[in-house]
Amino acid sequence: ALHSTTFEIDEKHGTDYHKKFVEFVKMVQKENLVIGGAMTDPKGDRSKGPAEQDDPDLFTRIVDTDDKGVYVSGAKAHQTGCINSHWIILMPTVRLTENDKDWAIVGAVPADVKGITYIYGRQSCDTRSMEDGDIDDGNAKFGGQEALMILDRVFIPWDKVFMNGEFEFASMLIERFTCYHRRSYVCKTGLGDVLIGAAATIADYNGVPNVSHIKDKIIEMTHLNETIFAAGIASSHLGHKMKSGVYLNEDMLAQVCKHNVTRFPYEISRLAQDIAGGLVVTLPSEKDFRHPEVGPLLKKYLAGRRGADVENRMRILRLIENMTLGRNAVGYLTESMHGAGSPQAQRIQIQRQMQVGYKKNLAKNLAGITNDIEEPKELSEYFDRVFKTKDSLL
Amino acid sequence: ALHSTTFEIDEKHGTDYHKKFVEFVKMVQKENLVIGGAMTDPKGDRSKGPAEQDDPDLFTRIVDTDDKGVYVSGAKAHQTGCINSHWIILMPTVRLTENDKDWAIVGAVPADVKGITYIYGRQSCDTRSMEDGDIDDGNAKFGGQEALMILDRVFIPWDKVFMNGEFEFASMLIERFTCYHRRSYVCKTGLGDVLIGAAATIADYNGVPNVSHIKDKIIEMTHLNETIFAAGIASSHLGHKMKSGVYLNEDMLAQVCKHNVTRFPYEISRLAQDIAGGLVVTLPSEKDFRHPEVGPLLKKYLAGRRGADVENRMRILRLIENMTLGRNAVGYLTESMHGAGSPQAQRIQIQRQMQVGYKKNLAKNLAGITNDIEEPKELSEYFDRVFKTKDSLL
Amino acid sequence: ALHSTTFEIDEKHGTDYHKKFVEFVKMVQKENLVIGGAMTDPKGDRSKGPAEQDDPDLFTRIVDTDDKGVYVSGAKAHQTGCINSHWIILMPTVRLTENDKDWAIVGAVPADVKGITYIYGRQSCDTRSMEDGDIDDGNAKFGGQEALMILDRVFIPWDKVFMNGEFEFASMLIERFTCYHRRSYVCKTGLGDVLIGAAATIADYNGVPNVSHIKDKIIEMTHLNETIFAAGIASSHLGHKMKSGVYLNEDMLAQVCKHNVTRFPYEISRLAQDIAGGLVVTLPSEKDFRHPEVGPLLKKYLAGRRGADVENRMRILRLIENMTLGRNAVGYLTESMHGAGSPQAQRIQIQRQMQVGYKKNLAKNLAGITNDIEEPKELSEYFDRVFKTKDSLL
Amino acid sequence: ALHSTTFEIDEKHGTDYHKKFVEFVKMVQKENLVIGGAMTDPKGDRSKGPAEQDDPDLFTRIVDTDDKGVYVSGAKAHQTGCINSHWIILMPTVRLTENDKDWAIVGAVPADVKGITYIYGRQSCDTRSMEDGDIDDGNAKFGGQEALMILDRVFIPWDKVFMNGEFEFASMLIERFTCYHRRSYVCKTGLGDVLIGAAATIADYNGVPNVSHIKDKIIEMTHLNETIFAAGIASSHLGHKMKSGVYLNEDMLAQVCKHNVTRFPYEISRLAQDIAGGLVVTLPSEKDFRHPEVGPLLKKYLAGRRGADVENRMRILRLIENMTLGRNAVGYLTESMHGAGSPQAQRIQIQRQMQVGYKKNLAKNLAGITNDIEEPKELSEYFDRVFKTKDSLL
Ligand SMILES: Cc1cc2nc3c(=O)[nH]c(=O)nc-3n(C[C@H](O)[C@H](O)[C@H](O)COP(=O)(O)OP(=O)(O)OC[C@H]3O[C@@H](n4cnc5c(N)ncnc54)[C@H](O)[C@@H]3O)c2cc1C
Ligand SMILES: Cc1cc2nc3c(=O)[nH]c(=O)nc-3n(C[C@H](O)[C@H](O)[C@H](O)COP(=O)(O)OP(=O)(O)OC[C@H]3O[C@@H](n4cnc5c(N)ncnc54)[C@H](O)[C@@H]3O)c2cc1C
Ligand SMILES: Cc1cc2nc3c(=O)[nH]c(=O)nc-3n(C[C@H](O)[C@H](O)[C@H](O)COP(=O)(O)OP(=O)(O)OC[C@H]3O[C@@H](n4cnc5c(N)ncnc54)[C@H](O)[C@@H]3O)c2cc1C
Ligand SMILES: Cc1cc2nc3c(=O)[nH]c(=O)nc-3n(C[C@H](O)[C@H](O)[C@H](O)COP(=O)(O)OP(=O)(O)OC[C@H]3O[C@@H](n4cnc5c(N)ncnc54)[C@H](O)[C@@H]3O)c2cc1C
Repeated sequence: ALHSTTFEIDEKHGTDYHKKFVEFVKMVQKENLVIGGAMTDPKGDRSKGPAEQDDPDLFTRIVDTDDKGVYVSGAKAHQTGCINSHWIILMPTVRLTENDKDWAIVGAVPADVKGITYIYGRQSCDTRSMEDGDIDDGNAKFGGQEALMILDRVFIPWDKVFMNGEFEFASMLIERFTCYHRRSYVCKTGLGDVLIGAAATIADYNGVPNVSHIKDKIIEMTHLNETIFAAGIASSHLGHKMKSGVYLNEDMLAQVCKHNVTRFPYEISRLAQDIAGGLVVTLPSEKDFRHPEVGPLLKKYLAGRRGADVENRMRILRLIENMTLGRNAVGYLTESMHGAGSPQAQRIQIQRQMQVGYKKNLAKNLAGITNDIEEPKELSEYFDRVFKTKDSLL
Repeated sequence: ALHSTTFEIDEKHGTDYHKKFVEFVKMVQKENLVIGGAMTDPKGDRSKGPAEQDDPDLFTRIVDTDDKGVYVSGAKAHQTGCINSHWIILMPTVRLTENDKDWAIVGAVPADVKGITYIYGRQSCDTRSMEDGDIDDGNAKFGGQEALMILDRVFIPWDKVFMNGEFEFASMLIERFTCYHRRSYVCKTGLGDVLIGAAATIADYNGVPNVSHIKDKIIEMTHLNETIFAAGIASSHLGHKMKSGVYLNEDMLAQVCKHNVTRFPYEISRLAQDIAGGLVVTLPSEKDFRHPEVGPLLKKYLAGRRGADVENRMRILRLIENMTLGRNAVGYLTESMHGAGSPQAQRIQIQRQMQVGYKKNLAKNLAGITNDIEEPKELSEYFDRVFKTKDSLL
Repeated sequence: ALHSTTFEIDEKHGTDYHKKFVEFVKMVQKENLVIGGAMTDPKGDRSKGPAEQDDPDLFTRIVDTDDKGVYVSGAKAHQTGCINSHWIILMPTVRLTENDKDWAIVGAVPADVKGITYIYGRQSCDTRSMEDGDIDDGNAKFGGQEALMILDRVFIPWDKVFMNGEFEFASMLIERFTCYHRRSYVCKTGLGDVLIGAAATIADYNGVPNVSHIKDKIIEMTHLNETIFAAGIASSHLGHKMKSGVYLNEDMLAQVCKHNVTRFPYEISRLAQDIAGGLVVTLPSEKDFRHPEVGPLLKKYLAGRRGADVENRMRILRLIENMTLGRNAVGYLTESMHGAGSPQAQRIQIQRQMQVGYKKNLAKNLAGITNDIEEPKELSEYFDRVFKTKDSLL
Repeated sequence: ALHSTTFEIDEKHGTDYHKKFVEFVKMVQKENLVIGGAMTDPKGDRSKGPAEQDDPDLFTRIVDTDDKGVYVSGAKAHQTGCINSHWIILMPTVRLTENDKDWAIVGAVPADVKGITYIYGRQSCDTRSMEDGDIDDGNAKFGGQEALMILDRVFIPWDKVFMNGEFEFASMLIERFTCYHRRSYVCKTGLGDVLIGAAATIADYNGVPNVSHIKDKIIEMTHLNETIFAAGIASSHLGHKMKSGVYLNEDMLAQVCKHNVTRFPYEISRLAQDIAGGLVVTLPSEKDFRHPEVGPLLKKYLAGRRGADVENRMRILRLIENMTLGRNAVGYLTESMHGAGSPQAQRIQIQRQMQVGYKKNLAKNLAGITNDIEEPKELSEYFDRVFKTKDSLL
């Protein structure tokens, strides 16, 4: 997103952001660094823009400038993986107006730069990772974390500043960033695959893998998951080259992809809990399972079908708990909802691009209406891009 | 359920369960006791009945009988509130065949009777209740718990035995029990009300209570919640008197009520998370909030609209987390799914009572089919009961 | 609705509408007359009220008054069954303001009064009823019709005028009328029963009545249908007595009932078409079936399972077509959508009554919020009414 | 489908179907002919295969063979556009067993070959096209038609026979054919665009284009429509080359595409009817509109917002009726349901390809299960194909 936006800012303003950004990317690639994209501001009163808030720091902003660089204050919320990043790129989170000039700042800082405080967020079942054993964790291998990053006069040297006051480009940056990012939510289908696998496994351990309603639910989970997958692939397939030379995936389908991500994982989880049975929330602890007296009782009474190992049954149940209620539910459900923007943000983008003027003409034409055809107001390059044609308008 | 079933067993077998049961109820009422209904067996391989399991104890059963009473072994899983009950009533959990006679046992025991071991189940976020403070709990006041009850030669004296081998009455007992119980899941609309209130409160604190999509989502949550409520009320309204003199609510609508409970709370939760924003899963801990240095930063950056108290905002977010991912999600979601029987159990009951023969006749009649009308095989008293009519069949 | 509203208008304005209305009802009952309720005006520009329209006649209004009565002009649209009614009651269709005084008229006229023109509406497949044979009709016995009623200086004598200028009572009248009327949409479950029966019959004729996905779809159709039924019953059960002595069913559940009617019949139809197979839309005509040469070919090739009569198979397929695409789809689908008000009208009523202030308090209370509890602004009699309690507010 | 299947039959059986087929295609392309694909047999009792039916003709079959060619009898049902085709290709419609050898016939015949009788199917509102005027048609320009084709000893010369007894290739042919065909149902998004445009137009004519629930419904319609579109594009993008040299689109996503087509158009139609208002089913006829006396009344009372032409308003309403209940509903709804196979057919294909063994391993791996990992039984080339990798299995 920055590659193309810096290019277009330079084109208009004669700045040199693009060159600086390309240098930065080269360094990142050479040193194999992890970058955290820090976009989301705390936002305070959601009905107000940056300049209208009671406290101007509720959106990250420039507080000072000198010949070495700029100084920013504010905060970035919900930062996934920021603690294991090397560098952070700060970007605005909303469309900005002229009054919001001071908030139009993009720049890169090392994750351990002076002035940043990280406040770690809690997750459902977070403290289980600190307990003994690995069963109750659910997913013994992977977790994630989010933090609130607070910025107190953080310094960004000029060569790491990629936007500085060009407020009118904030929306271009955000739209392109979220276009990539929403399409990237296709990654949740990987989690979906895991949950489908977990559901199939527990049905097997319970002795009912071939019961018709169970099979049907697993098919439904798959159908929903692949529907998301399809939109991700299609969005990439229809990508186009931008002025700066990089490609942007197709935006409408990126929105559609992410929008389904705000719905289907919840339904997939619901079906997984159905298949799992009540034990997914009433299973005793690993500690009890390892206990010399209680352990054997659990081994006896938590048996499934012949040949299914009780510990394995517990492990799969905990994985399902983990993904539908526990630490990974944060990533599989709530992040699917809000990450890269809440559902309503996608609906707004869908509305912008839905070519309703053109569709009205289609309908009027078929209905035999001849005296009320207007030239559609929508961006005509949409069709050129998606259907590779110059003459698709009525 | 036992009131009427014991009555009808006595009627057929000349036993005296009903009198004994009535005595038991009198004692309970006099001493104001809490009773736990212990139905669910561990069930092992779900494709097999009690007598077919590798281990006969996977369904609770009679292991011995003498002149003082019977001795039972086995286990009861997912027992809500058993630990704060005074007495436990043991009942079979599946329809039984002649081979399953030993499993056809109903009886009451004190919760602290010799031979019972309780193994406490884990819940999402359970250990938060043991932390300092009350914010991270989400719901500072109420929680619940389930336990696995293991029975090792538990003794039931004859005067507390309410079924003993009359396997053919197991299904009547279960059907009546679940008829009451599934209708009682209308209680989840109370939790729904809380979640609707929480969503409305956080929207207010965020400064967007009047945004159209937010209002629309709260209306949808309410619509779904009231749809559940309606079925509960209607099921009671259409109740009828049984032989023993007690009333049974209408069964079809009890199933419908519970079946919607396996769906709508998940959608209501999804909408609540949408309205809440990402903070519902990334909020820092109360400990950080009470910290002398970090606390003030949180107070500054977690501000919502003017006048909204940050601690209150955190409390509401934690409540939403609690109900959609944490301890109360166990009760609001997974128990809504499985408690009183998994969704498929309701579908089977709906199928049994859906009077499809009668409906086929309706259709044939309107379609002008005259040579293919069969007497419906369904129980004719259904219509007498629901529509209070004797002549509603074609 | 008029019984109670006229009573309350009289109470405030000292008028005598109630007595006149009761007289009218007596006559209707004595002579066993059919009354058409004519509410819906054509409405022109939907963003404007009666007085704001370019043409004042787009809402029915008083154009003249003399000592014998009032004269009204305008139109009433979508009038179901008006052509087979004896009397018509004219009522306003929207909440009125002071400027709309001339539109605040309620009165009864004979259906053949001077000045009314009926313009019959078209329905899908309407002309099939005029063809020979009865198979292609789908439902040989019943149909319905709607007409546009145009009123040109229609005279209403004073003793048949039940509101005249009391604009502030229009919303009370409409709310009570739609409260009854929306609950009455439970009638669509009767049509649902027919469609369920038709689907079960065609599955039988096709030889697949016991296939799991077919059974499951019929269960789902039933579940949805009974969900609607439940809300209707519950709304009546919770009814309360109004000042005039008549009962009003519970309004929230009436809305919920109707709102589900705007959704579930469409899904039930979709499932019916799934079960029916493609023939539901490609079946040759009855004329071909009766044709000496073509008929035998159809009899051979449209055979279903052994023993299923081909003509019967055709009849059931036509019934399903009729209810999902043809004349009765008008009543089963589109009228389910718009009759008694479009879906959004129910959402507005749900919003008004959803007691959100009370629910916010519930949530705040559980979240441990103590300094932000407000007295709910909602009508407190709601709880008195629904839960028969005087002290249910926090 | 035939290109590759004939190639693989030849490979196994040493036949020369492929060459003959390629010749046929050349002729078709040179003469620019329309081909009808005739697959669907009448099928009689759906629980039985071809050889098990009471009447062997219920699936099209070889009744005779001589040195010039083969003779087939039977029927093909629901043939879209067969009447405007030049040639018809006959293909089997179900997986065949050894007993069904006589039914394993593929061949091409001219549409007017001796022995074929076409029996035209009825469609909802079909006779409107024969009435005067073009408004009531809804879609004045386009319609479609299906016919039942009856084959009585239809002759196919050897050079037009592309399968003859190789029953084991029937399923390959069908699977590939439906893989192409189900993906091609993405065409229904074009109809979706028209309906979205029609809904937006009527909202405009009604004066409420900017009301929030209307906008939201149009966004939802678009979201659903684009979700279908995405799966079509993605299925093509992931296509792969087969032995014969032609490409086959990705099968899982073709199923997913078609499966959403069996759901979303129904919801899109429902929303279109919501936006349209009740007039969509109660609108008077064009005849009334052209009538000297009634016409002016309609012009007055069917007015929408200022500037909206009444005839145009009627035309759009009729188009919506046409697509949701009338002739084009056959194509937009019921054909979306059954064309290229009923929903359950897609679910079976999804199940076959859902790689559940692989997904179980993913889940077991994350859950820390080490002693129960099995080699997945699924076709390993799936991953090679979709992810272009050779080592994606655990
Ligand atoms: C929070 C909570 C509280 C509870 N409280 C109580 C309580 O107080 N007292 C009490 O007695 N019980 C209680 N229950 C238990 C509840 O009744 C059971 O969870 C429920 O009956 C399902 O049984 P299960 O958990 O063994 O799931 P399973 O039976 O293992 O079901 C898992 C899945 O497999 C399917 N399945 C299982 N067997 C078959 C089969 N033979 N054919 C087809 N499909 C099958 C189910 O439909 C479901 O989809 C509680 C449960 C929960 C979750
Ligand atoms: C697990 C997780 C990981 C994340 N990781 C990252 C990350 O790595 N980097 C990063 O930058 N961000 C990250 N995010 C943040 C994410 O982008 C935001 O959560 C998202 O943009 C929503 O913002 P919010 O949480 O402030 O919700 P809010 O904006 O408060 O939204 C709450 C609700 O209010 C509505 N709403 C808010 N404002 C308005 C308005 N003005 N008009 C109408 N409706 C409104 C929303 O539609 C939503 O329904 C992450 C979030 C989560 C949950
Ligand atoms: C408008 C339209 C146009 C069409 N155009 C063409 C065309 O051009 N060429 C062509 O060849 N075909 C065409 N078709 C036919 C289409 O492929 C078939 O409708 C489809 O395959 C379903 O077959 P059926 O209609 O016989 O339904 P059925 O097979 O009778 O299906 C009815 C229901 O029964 C179920 N069912 C049936 N058999 C079984 C079973 N054994 N086990 C479990 N469930 C079962 C189905 O899943 C479905 O729910 C068209 C269909 C339509 C509606
Ligand atoms: C089959 C049938 C039978 C009927 N029978 C009768 C009858 O017997 N007697 C009778 O009186 N009526 C009857 N009705 C009329 C019914 O009550 C109306 O259709 C209904 O009130 C909707 O009005 P409308 O059709 O003018 O739609 P519109 O009001 O034009 O609604 C179309 C869409 O626009 C929306 N909309 C309209 N205005 C606004 C606004 N200001 N703000 C936001 N959204 C708006 C609606 O929500 C809807 O989505 C019948 C209708 C049907 C379809």
